[in-house]
Amino acid sequence: MTDFFKGIPEIRYEGPDSRNEFAFRHYNPDEMVVGKRMEDHLRFAVAYWHSFAWQGGDPFGGQTFERPWFGDGMDLARLKADVAFEMFDILSVPFFCFHDADVRPEGATFAESLRNLEEIVDYFALKMETHRTRLLWGTANLFSHRRFMAGAATNPDPEVFAYAAATVKSCMDATHKLGGQNYVLWGGREGYETLLNTDLKREAEQAGRFLQMVVDYKHKIGFEGTILIEPKPQEPSKHQYDYDVATVYGFLKRFGLENEVKVNIEQGHAILAGHSFEHEIALAASLGLFGSIDMNRNDYQSGWDTDQFPDSVPEIARAYYEILRAGGFTTGGTNFDAKLRRQSLNPEDLILAHVGAMDVCARALKASAALLEDGALERARDARYSGWNKTDSKAMLGSGLAEIAEQVLSKGINPQPRSGHQERLENLWNRFV
Amino acid sequence: MTDFFKGIPEIRYEGPDSRNEFAFRHYNPDEMVVGKRMEDHLRFAVAYWHSFAWQGGDPFGGQTFERPWFGDGMDLARLKADVAFEMFDILSVPFFCFHDADVRPEGATFAESLRNLEEIVDYFALKMETHRTRLLWGTANLFSHRRFMAGAATNPDPEVFAYAAATVKSCMDATHKLGGQNYVLWGGREGYETLLNTDLKREAEQAGRFLQMVVDYKHKIGFEGTILIEPKPQEPSKHQYDYDVATVYGFLKRFGLENEVKVNIEQGHAILAGHSFEHEIALAASLGLFGSIDMNRNDYQSGWDTDQFPDSVPEIARAYYEILRAGGFTTGGTNFDAKLRRQSLNPEDLILAHVGAMDVCARALKASAALLEDGALERARDARYSGWNKTDSKAMLGSGLAEIAEQVLSKGINPQPRSGHQERLENLWNRFV
Amino acid sequence: MTDFFKGIPEIRYEGPDSRNEFAFRHYNPDEMVVGKRMEDHLRFAVAYWHSFAWQGGDPFGGQTFERPWFGDGMDLARLKADVAFEMFDILSVPFFCFHDADVRPEGATFAESLRNLEEIVDYFALKMETHRTRLLWGTANLFSHRRFMAGAATNPDPEVFAYAAATVKSCMDATHKLGGQNYVLWGGREGYETLLNTDLKREAEQAGRFLQMVVDYKHKIGFEGTILIEPKPQEPSKHQYDYDVATVYGFLKRFGLENEVKVNIEQGHAILAGHSFEHEIALAASLGLFGSIDMNRNDYQSGWDTDQFPDSVPEIARAYYEILRAGGFTTGGTNFDAKLRRQSLNPEDLILAHVGAMDVCARALKASAALLEDGALERARDARYSGWNKTDSKAMLGSGLAEIAEQVLSKGINPQPRSGHQERLENLWNRFV
Amino acid sequence: MTDFFKGIPEIRYEGPDSRNEFAFRHYNPDEMVVGKRMEDHLRFAVAYWHSFAWQGGDPFGGQTFERPWFGDGMDLARLKADVAFEMFDILSVPFFCFHDADVRPEGATFAESLRNLEEIVDYFALKMETHRTRLLWGTANLFSHRRFMAGAATNPDPEVFAYAAATVKSCMDATHKLGGQNYVLWGGREGYETLLNTDLKREAEQAGRFLQMVVDYKHKIGFEGTILIEPKPQEPSKHQYDYDVATVYGFLKRFGLENEVKVNIEQGHAILAGHSFEHEIALAASLGLFGSIDMNRNDYQSGWDTDQFPDSVPEIARAYYEILRAGGFTTGGTNFDAKLRRQSLNPEDLILAHVGAMDVCARALKASAALLEDGALERARDARYSGWNKTDSKAMLGSGLAEIAEQVLSKGINPQPRSGHQERLENLWNRFV
Repeated sequence: MTDFFKGIPEIRYEGPDSRNEFAFRHYNPDEMVVGKRMEDHLRFAVAYWHSFAWQGGDPFGGQTFERPWFGDGMDLARLKADVAFEMFDILSVPFFCFHDADVRPEGATFAESLRNLEEIVDYFALKMETHRTRLLWGTANLFSHRRFMAGAATNPDPEVFAYAAATVKSCMDATHKLGGQNYVLWGGREGYETLLNTDLKREAEQAGRFLQMVVDYKHKIGFEGTILIEPKPQEPSKHQYDYDVATVYGFLKRFGLENEVKVNIEQGHAILAGHSFEHEIALAASLGLFGSIDMNRNDYQSGWDTDQFPDSVPEIARAYYEILRAGGFTTGGTNFDAKLRRQSLNPEDLILAHVGAMDVCARALKASAALLEDGALERARDARYSGWNKTDSKAMLGSGLAEIAEQVLSKGINPQPRSGHQERLENLWNRFV
Repeated sequence: MTDFFKGIPEIRYEGPDSRNEFAFRHYNPDEMVVGKRMEDHLRFAVAYWHSFAWQGGDPFGGQTFERPWFGDGMDLARLKADVAFEMFDILSVPFFCFHDADVRPEGATFAESLRNLEEIVDYFALKMETHRTRLLWGTANLFSHRRFMAGAATNPDPEVFAYAAATVKSCMDATHKLGGQNYVLWGGREGYETLLNTDLKREAEQAGRFLQMVVDYKHKIGFEGTILIEPKPQEPSKHQYDYDVATVYGFLKRFGLENEVKVNIEQGHAILAGHSFEHEIALAASLGLFGSIDMNRNDYQSGWDTDQFPDSVPEIARAYYEILRAGGFTTGGTNFDAKLRRQSLNPEDLILAHVGAMDVCARALKASAALLEDGALERARDARYSGWNKTDSKAMLGSGLAEIAEQVLSKGINPQPRSGHQERLENLWNRFV
Repeated sequence: MTDFFKGIPEIRYEGPDSRNEFAFRHYNPDEMVVGKRMEDHLRFAVAYWHSFAWQGGDPFGGQTFERPWFGDGMDLARLKADVAFEMFDILSVPFFCFHDADVRPEGATFAESLRNLEEIVDYFALKMETHRTRLLWGTANLFSHRRFMAGAATNPDPEVFAYAAATVKSCMDATHKLGGQNYVLWGGREGYETLLNTDLKREAEQAGRFLQMVVDYKHKIGFEGTILIEPKPQEPSKHQYDYDVATVYGFLKRFGLENEVKVNIEQGHAILAGHSFEHEIALAASLGLFGSIDMNRNDYQSGWDTDQFPDSVPEIARAYYEILRAGGFTTGGTNFDAKLRRQSLNPEDLILAHVGAMDVCARALKASAALLEDGALERARDARYSGWNKTDSKAMLGSGLAEIAEQVLSKGINPQPRSGHQERLENLWNRFV
Repeated sequence: MTDFFKGIPEIRYEGPDSRNEFAFRHYNPDEMVVGKRMEDHLRFAVAYWHSFAWQGGDPFGGQTFERPWFGDGMDLARLKADVAFEMFDILSVPFFCFHDADVRPEGATFAESLRNLEEIVDYFALKMETHRTRLLWGTANLFSHRRFMAGAATNPDPEVFAYAAATVKSCMDATHKLGGQNYVLWGGREGYETLLNTDLKREAEQAGRFLQMVVDYKHKIGFEGTILIEPKPQEPSKHQYDYDVATVYGFLKRFGLENEVKVNIEQGHAILAGHSFEHEIALAASLGLFGSIDMNRNDYQSGWDTDQFPDSVPEIARAYYEILRAGGFTTGGTNFDAKLRRQSLNPEDLILAHVGAMDVCARALKASAALLEDGALERARDARYSGWNKTDSKAMLGSGLAEIAEQVLSKGINPQPRSGHQERLENLWNRFV
């Protein structure tokens, strides 16, 4: 045991009236919610990068956190892993997620980086024998190192494409070895800074080919997890190709990969793209693409990716409602892609941020489940479209403009607007949330 | 002749040093630019709605313009048409565009609205015999009347779908009869106000079926123009389905219509979607979807659709550069989807706004053509990707992750970043603009 | 009795478990909250304009609501008033608010408009004898009519200044007569569309002089209510002078009016200015300017003023927490400056929207009051600044840079950062909300 | 001579037709513009931090630039200074600007940091004997080090206030010694992350007291330059107190410092605050606060501070037009607070970025000067307000609401709107730009 979290107890469910900061007041893993344990609904994961690799910098200031594992060297990487698994135990989270760059020191060569990764993956595997936390997904960091500054798969330099391909292979191998349930691709540098030096068409074709290789490799090694793309409109690139769910859908259709790849949707990224989180989830579900979520919150008054811990039950409930309507997670889960504010220096801040976020998600899940079970909202929705169940309506859909125009004229069709009842439905919502 | 524009002369080219407000200083229709007359490059169109139907209202105030043709009745509709064609002549614009609701009074029934439309279309046809201005495109207004408040093709009420279908048929007929070169669909109400009462999947399927009917009808009547979708992310709906070019592409692929439909891209809509105008044009061109543009400008400090006349040569030059790179317009053109500020009350304001905008476009066209002919920017772009022309690079694209990883290891590939030269290219740009 | 709300009962408190849509589940007027009746804390007001004058239009579509009182004429104005007071009774709201233009038909001359206003004010006075709803504030609509398109007090035309002054006088008289507790000025057209034709300095001086006249007139007639400015950054004007609370403070200081005028803060306006609602309230309180609030919500994904009914308890709780910290309302209150979505056509939508909003506010009030009574948040805040209570710290504030620098050198001062505990405090917050 | 810029010549004016990348095409220092040398109008300054201290990182990636002077130690600091003055010579810029943290290594104690600063200031002083570049302004970096994470003057910890005060003293001393013409305060951490742990009132009072100390110290040491506050709404703090010019004005009035302090306005900060650059300049001028500018550009599609080099002549011309109207710079100047894109790795990128930006500013200056000399725009503006020159209008301003209302009634005043001619004025503008 390290002493990083010394004095912090394992977090247990104590119910809503508890005044103990180090307890769950709403997250009760074994509680049944619409036929499934709460833990199995929410499938929480801790993100290795924000919790253990991020140092507290922002564009105008440097490191604020002082962690004993900061620095290079495999010993520190192992210390970091020790602390990470201690935190997983304290929180009893069923999953974690990582990038290669979070867990191993960068080597002087690809070969050295690979050896470092393999060594730490073995160390993880060993720890996972005695800890219950599993791997939700692995991914490759193809955005932090300067070699990726102009893109990974979409780089003008084929050597970078090669380096990215080798890196992804290594991370897929690591994910497969650790029993990961998904593999994620986020293209933070797959985009552009200026159109003046960019060939959009060529870069998209490179990205399409790269993704095909990923899918092929998945099948080659027998990895049974899901390949997930994580959309984001911009930042760090001025414009990124995987802008949002609708854009990713078009990309997948273009390259014939819509049955092979799903999406990992982040709250903050949805906001930055001009959507709500629930919109992106509902859209992905309607297109058969829904995979997993990165749970966080984005400050509505800040125009960049703030990656805060969620704190709004009503907002998060909208998201879980759509997830429940879509049948819930399969291989996906709720990954806290959220970082402490850089002034939250203390070890207990890291624990309490997760405790609060897990409670917010649990309340949101319970509220949305109750609303779904109640059925009133779905009945109202169905009633609104019920005209389309008529035989005539269906026949109309099978006809053409001329035929319909004739009907409109002959029958004198003159549709009368009906209330959409938005505020009434918002009241209904607030009865449960 | 009406006397609305009394005293305003036909606008002629007088060259950059002219101090005459009622002259073009840059737009010279017959001047050759990269092998084509300027008029044939730019293909300007006046938008009937903003210039003749909009009354100057905004969400906090009513009508400010007082026009002799405001009101109902076919006489006023004809007066409006007379003034419109007078303005087309004053500006010598080769094209105009209209919605049904701009040109005819709404009737008490669909049949009456249709008769009104047909009558005014005949009146247009007659005028077009003696005026040179042609129809760039026609479209149906499926957003202003309260019947469309919850959508047209995507409405929960099948009767609205029927009404919309009949309306589009009538507008396609009108466009066909007047020799229109395109037909446009803008889905201002095809979206939602709240997800709480919305079935995204069903609505998308309705929209897909509707568009298929439009394409079928085009072929049925032998209309040879282009069907265009105009993307916009929001406003009037909180969220619209045709969010941006990438979204429309995915929609077309979903319903197998990507070879039948192209896009009409508006500057202001691009901005509201978080893109630049040139991004949307370049993306559409790369996907084979580029059709036409709605030229205007959106105030960067306002979060809504301001539809102002363009005033920035550097910004517009970016757009025309991408259009020229894509081979220029075929059936499309430059439609001024721009309205006077509501304080610009006078007839000469309407003329001068167009004169200024046409000059801005002409300067932008000439600058971007000169840069393209110079070739330095394209050479820099090609050089940046030249590594991909090597045999090895192409072979790599045909291989897989494992093979590439082996190469990276065996060759010790360690890519070195190269400058993207953004500022240098911006300087080059500013040499021409 | 009109039959507009036929079948809709008076809304009564039934407690959180009620499934009756036409009941309050949280708003219980007589319930005591930190020493005061809930009604006296919240001081709800219905806004006449949104509820009775707005017709459902937006920039792309016209009227959707069909109300029997729409149209011109004093009979319709009286019918509107009848319905309004019926709604006040159904909701048992203690207050309402109005603009002149909401309640009386515009006349052909100022004199006629004035007579219309006086007549309806008499009608209101009569109704108020038998109804319990009082006037929270009156105001003049100096933005809808085309005469105000370029400003009211800040207009380049002195005749418009005069017309605005006469109008404000008439509305102050009306407010005074009806026992209004405040008088509000919102400068929707006090700003500019383009700097090219604007003299910022002159317009500010006109606005300053105008406000001085308002204050003078208040004293002259013995009106004891509060004069309130309502800040808003833009819309309808591209840029408005009363941008936000901080800007209004500077304006008041410039003209020596900071002890005469306070602010009416709207949630949506705060958002559009890049602030949170609670920021604007806290800032106003810290400057001694806090007056009243316009309660609504602004869609974070829309860049314009959406004026929706509030639906988020956590967000609204932040606002009431700051209001409670500031000592609560004196003459101010919670005015619902919120309009139905334009698809919410039915009379019951209007009632239910208010019911839901009142419940949201009541929950928010109770939660924030409980948190304030608990005291943990305030203790944490005080502790964070406790170093400033030391004698040395106070002495330092009284010294100068050179003296302090000498201390830093001689004592080797090297401050160590302490955690800001943001997530921990958010958890605390969520224990109450 | 270092060899960092080896092979790059001094940049000279060659006129608009030059195709030499390493030449000015528009910036001609000795050319007379409205009675003053162009150099004396523009007063260009290079920002030490972006050009020599920034390493190319962003929130998702680290250093991309490799400069021989990166690292700690005074030798590297002197090498950096050598390269900086070489660049000043290549560009012939009359000024530079710096923070303490840009020029000296951070020491283990304040005393050591101070010694390092003093040593490098001596080195600068020596270099300035043989180079022509002067100091436009100095400033203290009170935002990068973790000690300032919760504010400098506004910190909850008095020790941080003390450290900040000592630091500002040292930077004012340095600026004074080097003959700096201004001293700047930018409060990147003077704001908050969450209201939950913040006392707005107390923090503003600390900031007011701090600024008073700065002003006192200026007088004490006889520094004759201008004290400038640089407004910014947010980033790095979620909310900053010096939000924009109007907010700073209110702050200065509150603490009675409006005659002692002016503002340094940055284009990007203006944009982030919801204003245009020209608005902030015009407002500052109208309030007697205009001091200096930070010239850069902010990407309109990015919600954070992008600090790009300016590239748009029309936009920048708006800014210089307001500066010229305000009488031009006195102690202020045009500081390029702009950084290379992180992909622009090469030494020539750094030079060319400044060359392009200086040319953009020169074109903008000449265009705006020509328009101002032409006088047409100012005549139009004056004409718009000419009604206010009448005796009656002035008398009205001196009267009160009741008197004016009487006039409106007795004279039947009914103002008629007049066109604001926005598009016409935009055309006029485009004749010059």
